[in-house]
Amino acid sequence: MTETPGSASVGVTAERSDAARNRARLLEAAALLVAEGGPEHVTMREVAEAAGVGKGTLFRRFGDRDGLLLALLDEAEAEFQEAYTAGPPPLGPGAPAADRLASFGCALLGRIANDADLGAALGRQVPYARRAASGSGRSFHSHISTLLCQMGLDSDHDMLAHALLAFLSFESADHLREEHGVPTTRLQATWVDLVRRLTS
Amino acid sequence: MTETPGSASVGVTAERSDAARNRARLLEAAALLVAEGGPEHVTMREVAEAAGVGKGTLFRRFGDRDGLLLALLDEAEAEFQEAYTAGPPPLGPGAPAADRLASFGCALLGRIANDADLGAALGRQVPYARRAASGSGRSFHSHISTLLCQMGLDSDHDMLAHALLAFLSFESADHLREEHGVPTTRLQATWVDLVRRLTS
Repeated sequence: MTETPGSASVGVTAERSDAARNRARLLEAAALLVAEGGPEHVTMREVAEAAGVGKGTLFRRFGDRDGLLLALLDEAEAEFQEAYTAGPPPLGPGAPAADRLASFGCALLGRIANDADLGAALGRQVPYARRAASGSGRSFHSHISTLLCQMGLDSDHDMLAHALLAFLSFESADHLREEHGVPTTRLQATWVDLVRRLTS
Repeated sequence: MTETPGSASVGVTAERSDAARNRARLLEAAALLVAEGGPEHVTMREVAEAAGVGKGTLFRRFGDRDGLLLALLDEAEAEFQEAYTAGPPPLGPGAPAADRLASFGCALLGRIANDADLGAALGRQVPYARRAASGSGRSFHSHISTLLCQMGLDSDHDMLAHALLAFLSFESADHLREEHGVPTTRLQATWVDLVRRLTS
């Protein structure tokens, strides 16, 4: 232990940036496999082989397959998050909060119905609770909760946001589209009606 | 083929009542195993053995394990269905539709939180779509939809009922209780607020 605190800290920093590079390399390999075969077919073994690491490394880094898919999901959601936090209105700032809320739900329902949407395909693979607790799940909730607050609702914004998000879940939307043949436009109209009723 | 149409029909009736008896016997064996070990541990092999039939018979009758659990669920839900369709108000008829809707959601959220509730334990074992398409799932939906209609809402009652039901799902309620430590009373208060806002 002849290292000074300074050089130890350099060592730690180098180790952290190594870890970040490794993480990025694993996610890149996983993203490539997801793009090729769809997220439902990706296994931890394949990703480890493609990235040239042992399966143990992959599990240590992401916990399990859901953890890996959620890490990919959070990357895939960055663009949508940019759109609803900083993009043009009515989805982004500048429109009244109720219009932004209506627009947000319609956008999310549209994405769920879009087979080419990577975020939707990834999100569909992990259970409700894991998805809701993920970075993008918490962003959705916090966005809705903030808008409800801005709408001046004298409610439990936090819980009401959870209640509304449940209707925007894959479980609900996929069931209605696949089992009942409900077109996405009808789900979106119901969302807009629900938001309108909250404020009136 | 010397049988007259009359005797053939007697044969068919006898066969149907045999089938009904067999079905009841299989469900009884399954219910006993569920009561002993909880629905999450019941396997098709165990039920077949307990009922003294081959596994093939069980699969032919119920399709798969989810199908068997759903058949048990529909039996377990009969009492609750009686309560909200014919029991005392405000859950049953006699109270204003909005009060009945508030009461229905609170009752359902209370049942989800009750570890001793057999219907909740069974329902939790099957995926959202299968549960929503089951007899009791459809009864819940049709009850909410009817109440929304009686409340005079100028809305798509059918879809709005689905939207509201999503918040009453295990996926949503279990997540909030288990991951966020939200007490059931707070979920119930949010439901009541939501119903109140729909009508105001």
